[in-house]
Parts: sequence; C-alpha cells; structure tokens
Amino acid sequence: MNDIKLAVVGGDIRMIYCAKELAKRGFEVSFCGFDSAGKDCGDAVRCRTVKDAVKGAAVAVLPVPYSYDGCRINAPFSASEIRVDDVLEAVMPTQLVLAGVCPPSFIEKAEELSLSVIDYMKDEELTIRNAIPTAEGALELAMKELPVTVHGAKTLVLGYGRVGKAVAAAFSALRSCVTVCARHADALAWANAAGYKTADMKDICRAVKDKDIIINTVPALIVDNNVLSFIGDDTLIIDLSSVPGGVDFEAAARYGVKTLHALSLPGKVAPETAGENIADAVCGIMRKKGVI
Amino acid sequence: MNDIKLAVVGGDIRMIYCAKELAKRGFEVSFCGFDSAGKDCGDAVRCRTVKDAVKGAAVAVLPVPYSYDGCRINAPFSASEIRVDDVLEAVMPTQLVLAGVCPPSFIEKAEELSLSVIDYMKDEELTIRNAIPTAEGALELAMKELPVTVHGAKTLVLGYGRVGKAVAAAFSALRSCVTVCARHADALAWANAAGYKTADMKDICRAVKDKDIIINTVPALIVDNNVLSFIGDDTLIIDLSSVPGGVDFEAAARYGVKTLHALSLPGKVAPETAGENIADAVCGIMRKKGVI
Amino acid sequence: MNDIKLAVVGGDIRMIYCAKELAKRGFEVSFCGFDSAGKDCGDAVRCRTVKDAVKGAAVAVLPVPYSYDGCRINAPFSASEIRVDDVLEAVMPTQLVLAGVCPPSFIEKAEELSLSVIDYMKDEELTIRNAIPTAEGALELAMKELPVTVHGAKTLVLGYGRVGKAVAAAFSALRSCVTVCARHADALAWANAAGYKTADMKDICRAVKDKDIIINTVPALIVDNNVLSFIGDDTLIIDLSSVPGGVDFEAAARYGVKTLHALSLPGKVAPETAGENIADAVCGIMRKKGVI
Amino acid sequence: MNDIKLAVVGGDIRMIYCAKELAKRGFEVSFCGFDSAGKDCGDAVRCRTVKDAVKGAAVAVLPVPYSYDGCRINAPFSASEIRVDDVLEAVMPTQLVLAGVCPPSFIEKAEELSLSVIDYMKDEELTIRNAIPTAEGALELAMKELPVTVHGAKTLVLGYGRVGKAVAAAFSALRSCVTVCARHADALAWANAAGYKTADMKDICRAVKDKDIIINTVPALIVDNNVLSFIGDDTLIIDLSSVPGGVDFEAAARYGVKTLHALSLPGKVAPETAGENIADAVCGIMRKKGVI
Repeated sequence: MNDIKLAVVGGDIRMIYCAKELAKRGFEVSFCGFDSAGKDCGDAVRCRTVKDAVKGAAVAVLPVPYSYDGCRINAPFSASEIRVDDVLEAVMPTQLVLAGVCPPSFIEKAEELSLSVIDYMKDEELTIRNAIPTAEGALELAMKELPVTVHGAKTLVLGYGRVGKAVAAAFSALRSCVTVCARHADALAWANAAGYKTADMKDICRAVKDKDIIINTVPALIVDNNVLSFIGDDTLIIDLSSVPGGVDFEAAARYGVKTLHALSLPGKVAPETAGENIADAVCGIMRKKGVI
Repeated sequence: MNDIKLAVVGGDIRMIYCAKELAKRGFEVSFCGFDSAGKDCGDAVRCRTVKDAVKGAAVAVLPVPYSYDGCRINAPFSASEIRVDDVLEAVMPTQLVLAGVCPPSFIEKAEELSLSVIDYMKDEELTIRNAIPTAEGALELAMKELPVTVHGAKTLVLGYGRVGKAVAAAFSALRSCVTVCARHADALAWANAAGYKTADMKDICRAVKDKDIIINTVPALIVDNNVLSFIGDDTLIIDLSSVPGGVDFEAAARYGVKTLHALSLPGKVAPETAGENIADAVCGIMRKKGVI
Repeated sequence: MNDIKLAVVGGDIRMIYCAKELAKRGFEVSFCGFDSAGKDCGDAVRCRTVKDAVKGAAVAVLPVPYSYDGCRINAPFSASEIRVDDVLEAVMPTQLVLAGVCPPSFIEKAEELSLSVIDYMKDEELTIRNAIPTAEGALELAMKELPVTVHGAKTLVLGYGRVGKAVAAAFSALRSCVTVCARHADALAWANAAGYKTADMKDICRAVKDKDIIINTVPALIVDNNVLSFIGDDTLIIDLSSVPGGVDFEAAARYGVKTLHALSLPGKVAPETAGENIADAVCGIMRKKGVI
Repeated sequence: MNDIKLAVVGGDIRMIYCAKELAKRGFEVSFCGFDSAGKDCGDAVRCRTVKDAVKGAAVAVLPVPYSYDGCRINAPFSASEIRVDDVLEAVMPTQLVLAGVCPPSFIEKAEELSLSVIDYMKDEELTIRNAIPTAEGALELAMKELPVTVHGAKTLVLGYGRVGKAVAAAFSALRSCVTVCARHADALAWANAAGYKTADMKDICRAVKDKDIIINTVPALIVDNNVLSFIGDDTLIIDLSSVPGGVDFEAAARYGVKTLHALSLPGKVAPETAGENIADAVCGIMRKKGVI
C-alpha cells in the first residue's frame, strides 16, 4: 500500500494516533494541524499547509467532530486556524473526504463542489468498537464516584444496544450484580442469555430501586421526574446518551440524586484506541469504495 | 446483639462507614472524632469525648492506621486532637482494643496498662476482602493513565498472592491479555489454571517487554535498574506494594518510564466497602475472642 | 389467569415440562398423549382424548416438531396414535394452534379449516433462549470427545449469529482460546469486542489450521473438500447447523477427520429448560395475540 | 536434553500421551507395555521388555496408579503381564522411580533395594493442574444428567480447596448461580472475592435446599443422613472426593436422591491433558532432583 497517500487534517490527539496507525499500516500519510502536539507521529509526514497535506492524497481524513462551528476545522493543536472552506477548496473531486459527525449542511456544501463526503462516525463497525472505551469510561467514572466497589454493587443498565451490551458486560465481568432494562423482548432474551437479570422498560420504576448505579444508554428521556422519584439519593446515575441525554437533570438535582452526563468517552479515556478505531474505519471505508 | 456496646474512635471516612455498619448489625455503637464529617452515621451515637464513647463498651475500635505519629489518634474529622494516651487511659483491661497497623511500641505500651490490643489489619479475611478494592483501584488508575483501553492491553502482574490474584482476575475479566510472573511453581500452576499466561520470575526481563502495563504486588525490589532497562517507555508501571515499594523509582525516572506508587487503595477508592470490611473483621475477631 | 385453559397435545419430554410450567404460571392446563411418561405433570390435568384436552382451551399447543410424517402427531409417549386430522378437527376457529416446525402444507390445511396456526419455533426469543442449551450441548460433546480439556484448547467457531455467540461465550468462559470466523465486518467487530480472535470467512483455510475443535453454526456448505484439506486429523468438527449441515461429511471421512452432526440439542441436553422456553414462547405469542 | 533417557512402563492411555509429550520436549523416551494401544507415540521408542526400556534411563516412570494389586503393574495395553518385582529388579539405585499413588508397602520394598521412589501424584502442581479436567468432568456429568441447563441452575460446591475452586469457577463461568460452602472463614472470604455466594459449613442443611446440583469435594462424610433429609429429590449430587467419598450413598438411595461418585476424572475426560500434566510433574521433579 506504499503508493496510496492519505491526508489527516486537524483534530485532537486521537487523530495523531490515527495518522500514526495509518502510517504503520503502510500508507504514505501526511498531516497538518498538530503543530503544538508534543507527540511522535511515527512515519507520518508533517506538512505546513492543508494544500501540501492534501496534494496527491486519495483520501482526506478530517477530525471528529470535523468542526464545532461549521467554519473552522476542529484543530486544537494547530498554530493557526484551519478554515473548512480552505480544506474543501484544496480537495479535488477525485479525492474522498472522510469526516466525523457531519451535519447535512456540510455534506451539501461539499456536494456543490462535487466532493464525496462520508461520515465515518456512522460506520457500524466503528460504533461497535467504540462501545468498549465507552464502557471502560463508565467503569472508571463509577469507580471514581462510588464509595463502594463495583464488585458486589447493584448496577442497572438502561438500554441494550451496542453501548448497553458493552457496559453490562464490563460491570458484570467485575462481579457487579447487573440488571438490564430494555423495551424489546428480544433484547431481554439476549440479556438473559448473557446471564443478567432483566426488567421490562415498563417496570423501570421498580427496577431503579435500591441500585447503587444506574447507567443510561438510551437517547430519549427515560429517567424523568416520575422515575427519579423512585431512585434513592445514594444512587449514582451516569448518562451515556448524547445531548440532551436521557435524564431530567434538573429534577435529579431537586431530588438530590447525583448525575454525570458523560459524553465522547472514547476520545477521553483511550485516545490511542479511539484513533486506531478511526484508522480501522478509514480502511474499511476505503475498501468498500475500492480505494484499496 | 443489642446489649453489646462498641466504641469507634477517630479515623477517616472508612471508620464512619464501619460505625454505621456495626450499628446496622445490631450493636450499640458510640463514636467520637467525626465532628466535621458531613456524613450520616445511621444508628451510631455521637459522643463528645473519648471517655463517653468508650464507657461500657466491650470493644474500642481505633482507625487504620491508628496514628501517624504515635501520639495522636488519626482523626482528620475531629474538632480537637485525640491523644493516644487519653484513649489508653479511658479503656479498662476488660475491654478489647482493636486498631489498624499497630507498631510493637503501641502494643507494648498497651500491655503495660494490661490492655489487649489486636491489629485487625493482620486479619487474613480482611486482607483477602481488601484485595478487591485494591484491584479496582489499580484498574481505575490504568484506565485513567493509559491511552489505550484495558480491553486488549497487555498486562503483566508481578506476584500472585492475594492482591496479585485479584488484580489478574480484574484485568482479565475486562479482556486484557494477562501474564502472571511469580517465583513459585505452585503459583504459576494456579495462574495457568485461572487462564493466564505465566512467566517464571527468573525470566522477568523477557516478561516485561512489550507490555502496556506492569502491576507489581511483591514487597521487594523486583523492578530494579536491570529489569527497567528492558521496559519500553510507553509502559505504565503501577506499584501496589507497601513502602518502599518494589520499583526503583529513580531509575524508572531516568529511563523515562512512568510509574505510580499506589498505596492504601481500599480507603481511597471504596471507603464504604473498606469500612464494611473492617466491620466484618471486627465481628470476626469478637467471635474468636468470645465477645459475641 | 385461572380462567384461561390451554391444551398440550403430544410431544416428547419437553412438552411435559412445558405443560407443567404453564400450569405453574396459573393456566388451567389439560394434556393428552403422555400415557407412558413416568413424569409428574404438576397441576396439569391428564385427558384421555384429544377432544377432551382441547375442549374449551384458548390455545392448543402441539409438539416440536408437530409431526414427523405429516399424518401422526409426534407423540412417543402416547399409548395410541394421535392423528393430525383428528387434532385439526377437534379445534375450533376461535382457538389458536401453536406448533413447532410447521411446513407450509400443514398451515394450508389448517387455513382451509379456518384455523390460525403459529409456528413457535420461528419465535425470535425462543431461538435466542435455545442458543444456551445448544451451546451447552456442544460443550458436552466436546468434553466427551476431545482427549484434551476445553480449557486451553483452540476452538474455531464458524458463524456469529445467535448460536455462534452462545457457543463462543461458553467455550471462552471455560478458558478455551476462541477464534470466530464470520463474513460480515460487523460480526467480526462484535466478536472482537467480546474478546475473541477473529478471522474473515475468506481466510477460513488459514483459520482452521491447528485447531482442536471447529464448531460450525452456518447453515451452508462452509467446510467443503477444500477447507477440509487444511484441517488436521486430530481436529474434531461439531456441526450444529440443520440438515444437510455445513460440512461435507463424506470428504471429512476420507480425510479421517472426526465429525459430529449435532441436531436439536436443547431437547436432548436440557429438556426441562427447553420445555420452559417453549412455555415462555407460548405466553409471548398469547400476549401478542391478545389472548392474555 | 537429548542425552537424558526416560523410561515409561505401562499404564493407560494417559501414559502414552505422557511418553509422547516427554519425547516432544527433547528427552530420549523408551516405553513398554502399550502393545495393543493403537496410538501413535511420536518420537518415543517402543521396547519389548522392561529391561530394555529401563536400561540407561535416568528415570523410570510408572503409571497412575502404578498397580491395582501390588503385584502387577497397571498395564491394560500390555500383551503380557508386567510384574512389579521385575520392574524393581531392572532398576538400578542410580535411577529414579516415579510412580503414581504409591502405598507405603511399595516404597518400603523399593527402599530395601536402595531405590528412590517418588509419588508424583503428591506433586502440588500436578494436583492443581488436574483440578481443571476434574472440574470439566463434573461439568460434563452435570450437563449429561440434569434436565436443565447449567446456565441458570443453582449449584452448591462443598469445599473450596483446589478442586472446589476449579469447579466453582467452571460452573460460574457458564452462568450457573454458585454457592460455596466451606468451613474456614478464609476460604469463604476468597469465595466471596471470586463472586460466589457463600455459606458456612455449619449451615449446610440450609445451604443444600433448592439446589439443582450439589458437588462435594471434601474427603469426609459431609452429606450424611441428616443433611440428605434437607435435599430435594430433583437435586443431583456429584461426589468428587476419593473413596469412600463424602456422601452417605445408601441414605441418598433411600431418600431417592440421585448421586454420582465420580473418581479419577482427569484420566477419563481428558487423557491427553492428564498425560501432559504427568509429563510436567515428571520434569518438575527431575528439576528438583537435579536430573535436569
């Protein structure tokens, strides 16, 4: 794969690990926007400008999220601002743009320039892989916040999708007593087969009682005022669902229940793993697109 | 057990949980030295003085460690100093003194007053129970410090006693790839039976290579200058053995290897569990001594 | 649920456990066709004829498979033959017929009589629940046939659907070294997250080498002559996929590779669990159909 | 190790695997007494007589048990009888005799001839290693006999030594609900740390209630008439302790409780692993004795 060039533009420490990993896999990797990151980038080659980095690349990899304001690339380690428009201008229609968490507006803008943009954060495999660092992040928070050990603690996991499965597995592996609460009978049958206690989501009010920790993975207001009224004030709630989350945080505060809204855990708790996972996703997408 | 009175004197938050737990088990518990601890103590009764607390008690439970300087009881939440001598004076020879980490000097002083002192930190069961919060503490540190997930990380555990077993089990449960390095063939056979890779301590220099994390549990200088010369600078070393520890920290610094000397983890990561474990030990000792 | 009557007609020992379990859940259960089964049936009521059993029942539960020849109900414990036609005649259009493994011909025949037939073996939950006894059956076979322990043995699981997941989990739990071989990248990501080694189905010839045991769960000819040429003659192959199975058994015999085609394991290895699972499925279907 | 010769004399299929394994490790291995065993013995060399096999060997390895009657070597695959006396005569005082399960009479007889005999079945490591096939054998029996899956079954393990630990771990790994019943507080603390429920041996009568399976590992009459009176007739008892076992089998028969006395499981369920474990023990003993 020595002939294929990839450009990595901006991003946090994850993208440095991503660039390094791609170089390790035999790609020619050029990158820009990591001026102040004191990290070794392996065999990846540092470029001064976006233009230099992108030139000749088969794929331009933008960070996750690609931008916070839609104007500037998310590039905390860059000495100077990198404008989204400059990146789009530097890319040719023959080149593929991979970016994390792209709103429709960005994709439309790119399409106007005849550019193909793929949001790698929608990649199923990446989402599965990221469930592991998310679960470990939840575990780390639980260990930090709970006055008891996870071993022996009563844990309730709300939702049994990718993250719910990883969280239940991690807590159960450490001998926490795990109950999974989900809506679908299939999910409950799976949870039962995996060895957990189960509760139908209709019975959530009973399920939340006497738990040491409740971890929500459902992106909907599940833990509302009514549910909170059944939760003891010794219980810790960790909400892993994306903004606005699945917990009525104000009501929780009123009830004196401690809540943590933990977002984007993979990049925080395991940036190297998260960067390698992105590199995996980039390779998977290139395979599907026939680039490699 | 309503007729038996126990006194808890001083200590950190663990001893509050210990007092609460003992009260929950039906003992009449009086305590002093927690003036500024904003914690509910359940049914335990707060006393103003050591004398009041100890009066009529079958057992006086001192903290862990009972003192940092041999003069004053370790009592961070006490409004005023509690002198060790005052406690010893308040106790009668018919009462039992239980304390954590007692030097011979303390035991001698007590014996001069015809008092029986038992160091509950030497209790085998307590040591076994405390291995769990210690292992969880090591896990929390690893998650916090490592840029990769524990899942898939290569972990080396030095020593396979109580703590080594708990650490290996916890990391392996999270799907880390665990190698146990120990001296005795029996320990290695056990580690193998538990499903870990094993290495003889004689081969430690080969065993430390390419590990993401090394956790020492042996209270002897195992990771010396020579061993360190084989350890990569991406490796994290967590030393769980008591002062002075099993790692040549200065040499590690020279080699640029990151080290953490993590002591007294149970009280830090899970004070409630640690306090309940002490309550367990107190009960166990009382049973052996015929108090209950 | 005391007012709802259910009829169980024929079947092997699973259906006795099923009848017993339904009675335990508060239904009025009548059954026929178990004359010579020396098993206590709890509160279920024995009837002499199909007519008596079915009369007044909301649901008639037929066995799995409901029949081997399409003419006679599968009823090994029945003193006399139970004809399928007699059952269909005894049932009224207001009654629901639940049966296991129904061919289209049976459903058509029932529809001609305006009867609703539901094949409970197609119930997703039941299939998930049955994966557990299937995996345990595979484990029992492996333990019986292999000269080595499962602990430490190298296991290859082909396919990562319901049964593949349960099998991988069971073998890995006993510290076998498990590799999962599947086609879809998502499945491989899941298998990786669960802590197994993975291999793309395209690389199956490499994956089968040096394995102690290979367990196929894919209902397609995966282990063909070519693949078999890479398998050592110490390797045991267990095929869990339904007839005709996923292994070229003739070629395997030529190569001297031992194969076992293990079918319908739940009923064989854990008839009580299998019967309770059917009772679960019956209840789930009744809920969906508004019967309860 | 090419210069060291070892002789393997008689035994069941385990000893063939043992001979093969020793040859694989680079020893020159000669053996006799496997005439009718249709097994390939790798690089080990077949001898016609004991004399030929033993000649020049550093160590003579006898089977487990070395003999059933004290006169003839246990050699089911031998065309002709091998007399114990003939073996002892063939061995020189400079050669080491390793044998399994030696009564004092055998050791005395050997000593009279100035021969050193070591009973490798007393080797601590071997005992630990053999706990794994023993636990798998218990699991296989439970799967074969129980009408329910081990997953979800309520299992009681009596004793928490080597075998008890391995059994509890195996059943728990398959998601059985395991309770450990032991005498010592330390053992119970370990079992609790491993995540099992625990019961003091004093409370065994309560602990045995409502269990699907009870596995005894204690070599003493634990499950006596009184304890049996608390055990339901659906419960399966597997006794792993050596003759006479820990169960009053007659009383069990009277109560209608099904019992299995399972002895020498390693050789039965996993002869290859058992043979390799003996080879391991032989090497360990040779190291201790300075032979290698």
